Amino acid sequence: MNTATFTATPPLKGWSAYKQALPEDVLAALIVTVLLVPQSLAYALLAGLPPIAGVMASLLPIVAYALLGSSSTLAVGPVAVLAMLTAQAIGPVAQAHGVSASLVALVLSVEIGVVFLIAAALRLDVLAALLSAPVLHGFVNGASLAIALAQVPALLGLPIKGNTLPELWASAQAQPSLQPHAATLLMGGSALLLLWALRRWATPGLKALGLTPRAAQLWGRMAPMLVVTASIASIMLAPQAWTGVALAGAISLGDGLQFAPPWQAPLAVWQDLFTPALLLGLVAYVESLAVAESLAARRGEAISPRRELLGLGAANVAAGLSGAMPVTGGFSRSIVNFDAGARTRFAGLWTALFLGVAMATLGGYLAALPKAVLAATIFLAVLSLVDLHHFSTAWRYHRLEGGLMISVALATLFLGVEPALALGVLLSIVLLLQRTARPHWAEVGRLPGTEVFRNVRRHQVETLPHLLQVRVDESLVFTNTRWLADTLGQLVQQRTAVRHLVLMMPAVNFIDLSGLEGLQKLNDELRQRGVTLHLSELKGPVADRLKAGGLEQWLTGRVFLTEAEAWHALQAP
Amino acid sequence: MNTATFTATPPLKGWSAYKQALPEDVLAALIVTVLLVPQSLAYALLAGLPPIAGVMASLLPIVAYALLGSSSTLAVGPVAVLAMLTAQAIGPVAQAHGVSASLVALVLSVEIGVVFLIAAALRLDVLAALLSAPVLHGFVNGASLAIALAQVPALLGLPIKGNTLPELWASAQAQPSLQPHAATLLMGGSALLLLWALRRWATPGLKALGLTPRAAQLWGRMAPMLVVTASIASIMLAPQAWTGVALAGAISLGDGLQFAPPWQAPLAVWQDLFTPALLLGLVAYVESLAVAESLAARRGEAISPRRELLGLGAANVAAGLSGAMPVTGGFSRSIVNFDAGARTRFAGLWTALFLGVAMATLGGYLAALPKAVLAATIFLAVLSLVDLHHFSTAWRYHRLEGGLMISVALATLFLGVEPALALGVLLSIVLLLQRTARPHWAEVGRLPGTEVFRNVRRHQVETLPHLLQVRVDESLVFTNTRWLADTLGQLVQQRTAVRHLVLMMPAVNFIDLSGLEGLQKLNDELRQRGVTLHLSELKGPVADRLKAGGLEQWLTGRVFLTEAEAWHALQAP
Repeated sequence: MNTATFTATPPLKGWSAYKQALPEDVLAALIVTVLLVPQSLAYALLAGLPPIAGVMASLLPIVAYALLGSSSTLAVGPVAVLAMLTAQAIGPVAQAHGVSASLVALVLSVEIGVVFLIAAALRLDVLAALLSAPVLHGFVNGASLAIALAQVPALLGLPIKGNTLPELWASAQAQPSLQPHAATLLMGGSALLLLWALRRWATPGLKALGLTPRAAQLWGRMAPMLVVTASIASIMLAPQAWTGVALAGAISLGDGLQFAPPWQAPLAVWQDLFTPALLLGLVAYVESLAVAESLAARRGEAISPRRELLGLGAANVAAGLSGAMPVTGGFSRSIVNFDAGARTRFAGLWTALFLGVAMATLGGYLAALPKAVLAATIFLAVLSLVDLHHFSTAWRYHRLEGGLMISVALATLFLGVEPALALGVLLSIVLLLQRTARPHWAEVGRLPGTEVFRNVRRHQVETLPHLLQVRVDESLVFTNTRWLADTLGQLVQQRTAVRHLVLMMPAVNFIDLSGLEGLQKLNDELRQRGVTLHLSELKGPVADRLKAGGLEQWLTGRVFLTEAEAWHALQAP
Repeated sequence: MNTATFTATPPLKGWSAYKQALPEDVLAALIVTVLLVPQSLAYALLAGLPPIAGVMASLLPIVAYALLGSSSTLAVGPVAVLAMLTAQAIGPVAQAHGVSASLVALVLSVEIGVVFLIAAALRLDVLAALLSAPVLHGFVNGASLAIALAQVPALLGLPIKGNTLPELWASAQAQPSLQPHAATLLMGGSALLLLWALRRWATPGLKALGLTPRAAQLWGRMAPMLVVTASIASIMLAPQAWTGVALAGAISLGDGLQFAPPWQAPLAVWQDLFTPALLLGLVAYVESLAVAESLAARRGEAISPRRELLGLGAANVAAGLSGAMPVTGGFSRSIVNFDAGARTRFAGLWTALFLGVAMATLGGYLAALPKAVLAATIFLAVLSLVDLHHFSTAWRYHRLEGGLMISVALATLFLGVEPALALGVLLSIVLLLQRTARPHWAEVGRLPGTEVFRNVRRHQVETLPHLLQVRVDESLVFTNTRWLADTLGQLVQQRTAVRHLVLMMPAVNFIDLSGLEGLQKLNDELRQRGVTLHLSELKGPVADRLKAGGLEQWLTGRVFLTEAEAWHALQAP
């Protein structure tokens, strides 16, 4: 059975067809679940929410994505960068309206989901392009650094909070003492060291012990579970030794279902979250799509950008309705899912099932998990996302884009993620508009003895003093029309002998309303100077549209089918 | 002396050179002053400010523009649409921070001025293109209608206020009675009728009396002064008869100089006005530039977009520092200035001088000017800006752009000007991105026996089954790269015999960082399928940049100078 059929057609042709993929899916789900247990708690804390919000984010949303998404290996759930965005978005809103952060998070999840569903309906997946490469890399690096720094106080046992450097600084200033809590520091520091050592040596060590490379890699990736288990064991065995170490606290699936539903939030909360929902949605989609596409390419599968919007939309609506934080496709778990051999999206269903069972049976033990260990997990996970190599590449490639990447990273660290993203998207558009605002054009003349017209600067061509022939090489749209009309107006002003200007438009694919008004303005200015404007070589759809816009009423001159026709008709001054 | 030299070179070559233009400038300034007296009061009221803010806006800002601007006839000062934008921007900020509206208006003026000056320094005049034709027309029509409707309560003597239809409706609902004030209605209604009649018949009447067409038109334009004078006279002659009619109130230039300077405003006010300053600046610049350009074209003069930014920037900073509301170039007064024969920007200096004298001597009389008469002036002035013709033209030309225009107009009426403009600019960009996100490309083959490669769909060409040659006809930028890489990836997937893909890029002028990453991604995907990616016919700057980005390290295939070279090198599968 070809795995590609799972993505191109409805995922199941019935139980008999699925039976073959079942063992692989179940194995992958078991491995992902082991990784998901600490991550779901850690990312909920990162978002400023109780741990249960992260657990719920790994249940229903996975099921929703499995039903509607298009990737066979994408692992949907809580994700570090999105968790930090969530924290920054819900904090001020919860405070301003006196509503619990958990309730605000549900509203945010629903709004992100609705944004995705509307984007899918309107085929707006193309807008993902708004997050250009410099903005994305600058943002991910800045956010990862900020998340890593924000974990340091938890590792030291200090009650310092903040999502940006100024916030962390102000919070530290407000502390009466900056003396670390010894037991927490011991717990957090040893967890960090152990996690780092396992990340570095577990896989090579297992390989040296004779495991196959693939098995060694998989077991190596699950090594963090060792640290989690060890820390829980030490807390439970010697509670007195660890007095004052902050713990994750009891997690009960029953409690998880007792939440205030999002529709109980005041309208003002929904309104205030509208812009954050757009930005978070953009980031969540672009990140998830990149992961899904890179994994699909390795198996020769295809990803449908629109079905990804549907899948992520359904997943986030499900998150909001089931008491969970916003979700998207995450890099680390998806890689593990892929490497573990998941064959279909139904591996996600098994993951949700196993996680539910794990939480129901192990909830009591997880209550003893120290927050410092979770902080150590987050610290190493996000530091692996930092890749300063991108900055030097970008800087070498283009100073402006390198500068944009650095600006977005610094803005993320100092101002927060929303202003940084807004700034980045805005500057990308400004750069693009500035580039496209100067369309290419050339004065043309006739290659002697032919009907062919070419650039006067590159070819030996014939011209006439009273006839100016200009070829425009770009669609006329609002970004470039004013400039083009101004430039041609000035050119005619310099050539006092000119009586006719022919615009040759074989490469003009589109003229928008601003372009139409620009042409009308050029026509009027030229007429006042005694110069007649003509058009030639219009493409069919462009000509139709200009006629609908009343071309005959305003154009002083004529429309020629070919430039040669214009040349012959306008031989006399 | 040629008038063009006034704009192309510094405006004055000394007194002897200016003497010739002096009489015409002085006459034009006198005529404009007559128009400016009621307008400066009316637009200040429209902005929700005391009348003196409008008077001050017609003094120093005019001088500042005359020194730095580039148009010889643009009349800078208070303008209806900008006044309404000002009212909507300053109202909520003044309320939120408990600061007077006058002080907030000064901060806004300074910020708009600084935005202009920064834009001039960074050569951002190209951003004026952001206000595309559908957005501009939709906005001007919607705002004019909203302003006209907001005058109706003042004409009826009812204390109903609001800048949008819902605000007017809510304010009307809150009134205990909607009984018009009889004396105000009489005053306002007769002023409106008289103004309308004069506008319609004054010029033809004066022509019939034997005046030259130009003189008749100028005197006709000044006819509103008759109504202003008559209303002041009736108030002063029979004050008892007009009890309860709201009057403009005393205007004293001495009081005008006793204002709290903008730097006394709290920092939060400056911050809150940042976005409004950007939007107001955009509108003010685009409107003013359109007026300046259309008048310059009639005289064969040139406008410098950058010097316009400088002139308007200086004018608004001057406004903020002299107790005035934000200013820009206005349509109606500029036309009068032009028709009255103003020769140089120094006509503005004379206008400022005459207005100062008029206010110093006539301030006592103007105190008796009924607000209902000012409302009637505004009502007719803005209704002349409404042009529904634009909507039908746009709708016929392109449904999407017509829809955009209507949406912006409705948003202006129902939501206010800021959301309407933000929505319009955003939708314009979305439409543009959607259009540019699908670059043109063509599979090419060799014209038999030549070295020329053409589109396989249009020409009889030779191709090889293992070689796919694709010509890309657009720069690779963040808006289109993902789509192009996906499309080419799918094409290769369908052609199982293909072993080499050559991208022919003679028309690619630029590859941004996102484009580079798109090419790398395509290269990696193809390599995993056993297909080699090659590039050909790169332009010089593009090739240089790709090499700086490490092309040799990642490209699986080769870079060919010409497509023919690729064709010969890749003959064997």
